[in-house]
Amino acid sequence: MSVPVIVLAPDSFKGSLDAPAVCTALETGLRRVWPDVLVRRCPMADGGEGTLDAVLAASGGRGTRAAVTVHGAGGAPVAAGYGVLGHADAAVAVLEVAQVVPITDPAAMRVAVAERDTRGVGELIRTLFDRGLRRFMIGLGGSSTNDGGAGMLAALGMRLLDAAGQPVPPTPAGLARLATVDAGGLDPRLAASSITIMSDVNNPLCGERGATAIFGPQKGVTADEVARFDAGIANFAGLAEAATGGRAASRPGAGAAGGLGFALQLVGGEFRSGAAVVADLIGLDRALAGADWAITGEGRSDAQTLLAKAPFVVAQRARAARVPTTLVSGAVDPASLAALGDHFAGAFGIAPGPITLADCIAGAEALLADRAAELARVFAAAWARPGRGSDFP
Amino acid sequence: MSVPVIVLAPDSFKGSLDAPAVCTALETGLRRVWPDVLVRRCPMADGGEGTLDAVLAASGGRGTRAAVTVHGAGGAPVAAGYGVLGHADAAVAVLEVAQVVPITDPAAMRVAVAERDTRGVGELIRTLFDRGLRRFMIGLGGSSTNDGGAGMLAALGMRLLDAAGQPVPPTPAGLARLATVDAGGLDPRLAASSITIMSDVNNPLCGERGATAIFGPQKGVTADEVARFDAGIANFAGLAEAATGGRAASRPGAGAAGGLGFALQLVGGEFRSGAAVVADLIGLDRALAGADWAITGEGRSDAQTLLAKAPFVVAQRARAARVPTTLVSGAVDPASLAALGDHFAGAFGIAPGPITLADCIAGAEALLADRAAELARVFAAAWARPGRGSDFP
Repeated sequence: MSVPVIVLAPDSFKGSLDAPAVCTALETGLRRVWPDVLVRRCPMADGGEGTLDAVLAASGGRGTRAAVTVHGAGGAPVAAGYGVLGHADAAVAVLEVAQVVPITDPAAMRVAVAERDTRGVGELIRTLFDRGLRRFMIGLGGSSTNDGGAGMLAALGMRLLDAAGQPVPPTPAGLARLATVDAGGLDPRLAASSITIMSDVNNPLCGERGATAIFGPQKGVTADEVARFDAGIANFAGLAEAATGGRAASRPGAGAAGGLGFALQLVGGEFRSGAAVVADLIGLDRALAGADWAITGEGRSDAQTLLAKAPFVVAQRARAARVPTTLVSGAVDPASLAALGDHFAGAFGIAPGPITLADCIAGAEALLADRAAELARVFAAAWARPGRGSDFP
Repeated sequence: MSVPVIVLAPDSFKGSLDAPAVCTALETGLRRVWPDVLVRRCPMADGGEGTLDAVLAASGGRGTRAAVTVHGAGGAPVAAGYGVLGHADAAVAVLEVAQVVPITDPAAMRVAVAERDTRGVGELIRTLFDRGLRRFMIGLGGSSTNDGGAGMLAALGMRLLDAAGQPVPPTPAGLARLATVDAGGLDPRLAASSITIMSDVNNPLCGERGATAIFGPQKGVTADEVARFDAGIANFAGLAEAATGGRAASRPGAGAAGGLGFALQLVGGEFRSGAAVVADLIGLDRALAGADWAITGEGRSDAQTLLAKAPFVVAQRARAARVPTTLVSGAVDPASLAALGDHFAGAFGIAPGPITLADCIAGAEALLADRAAELARVFAAAWARPGRGSDFP
């Protein structure tokens, strides 16, 4: 029996396995059924944590990794990794805000969110300017900050002043006292640069669907802080827009990474689906060409998955290449199966039977390999029989 | 796209869904993906509860159902259902001991196991003799008794006496006092009959792997009763063998249904795999001919499944017909996946993610439909592509 060519393009299972580990577990399972299966590993990401690793892993010899020490969200120094693809004028810097202000940094999370800022992101960009880089892909997602991107803009030369003309810190607490924004000192290299923002968040900067209301609470913004922080960011955004002559607060994605999506778009950044950019950077379409089956996945799948999350982008690219895509996630919301069924050739969790969430997370690697093996048996059973048509759901 | 022909041949999910309900749930799921799929419903059984229903459901117009009131295990009257297939000399009576002495009968279970017996099974057979029937298929399994089949033999004319020549009851308590067995009064119609025993139990009558040691505890035999009851049954068996000139205690299946497997073999019954007999009676091989996929399942699958349980028999018959069989059970033991993989084209539980056993049982119907739908999407994805060979695992 000939063996299929299978593309493995999962996102990470957040809190459990990174995307390369998910690929390895899937491959382990598949090889139980097809020892000589042809596997193309394409660990995915969505602009958040893991984006840099995914892009560098797929770059072959074209990518290098380095780090710069900058201020973390809470003020302590962090070694922020970044990548460079290509050389000289064609060089592209790949950044990930989760490398600078990660929500997984316990030290930063001990500082109140009112005092956290993104100045480290601006410091990193400035350093890369100094090294001659002018093209940037910046992954948003996984940030601990809610400063509207004020910290980054401040580190790039924007001055934030109170009513007495004194500087205010670029934090939610500082923005409450903000009276004047002076954009005259913004680094002129911004205007000469190309910035692509990678995000899976379409939210605007402020309001009911804004950064503070939707993503603030998971960063520690309390119920009675939401309105205050949101108003402070709205005030900052209005002043910054007036000072620069730009408009960005109402654009989709302005609310990504606590408002970094606003600040980066204000200085010319182009907003794109993080997973789509990653798919391009890792050459997913090339991997799918001529493949027979794709498997993707994520920690938990539900209706949100269809809002440009990595598995959805994989399914779309695969459909264009006429490759069926099966979804294998830590868990799948049963209520979303019908909607997922329009895009995926089957959606599966990894639970083998009654099991607790903790056991499911702890055993994810083995359970995932098991699930892949059993699905391979089903695929093989149908695959081995004479073809009866050419469509798949 | 053409649609596959799919055979649905599950056992019941004990404690949750009977086999026809499992078929319905599977079909509901499959039709989400293939509205016009061709389904052949073959609800299975293994000789235990559900066997009579499965056989009658598959019999079309050939089968009739009736009932006779006999003594239940605890002495109270029970209406014991039975079936008759065919007519006149070709008529076959289909019996199920779970119709007479079911472990699911709360009234009988309130009587101590030491006082329970199987005389109702003998009464039922005698009544059917009176009605002219001489061919019997008797499903063992799901019994509440541990009397070595003494009750059934007593009802058919065997006399059990103590040392003083007084009758003893055919119960574990009575057998403790048994001194003499007189087989002279055994119904002569037994010798003129054909009896096929359907069971999924290979155990001998006595000893470490015997009826009392292995199946006694779930019927209420206490730890300190095991040796005593086992000795009483061994004594009875030796006397009964001597009285009849037969040998049956050490045969495989003698330990089925608390020793009814012994008693029925002693009077000429032929022991067979219950699931295999049911497969024959319901015409499983005909249903599999020309089918593209079979789905089977049971409440819980593990290494025991491969000991002639219904799903295993389905997989064997399907393999002979070159039809791949996928296993969908309430839960699947992860440690048994490798062994199951030699026989099944994929083995799956129905848990959608972290879930309790109670929720899994309560939601079994919907979860099963979901699992069938998602597996159908995988099958369809591979099915739709050009065939590359002809084997399946």
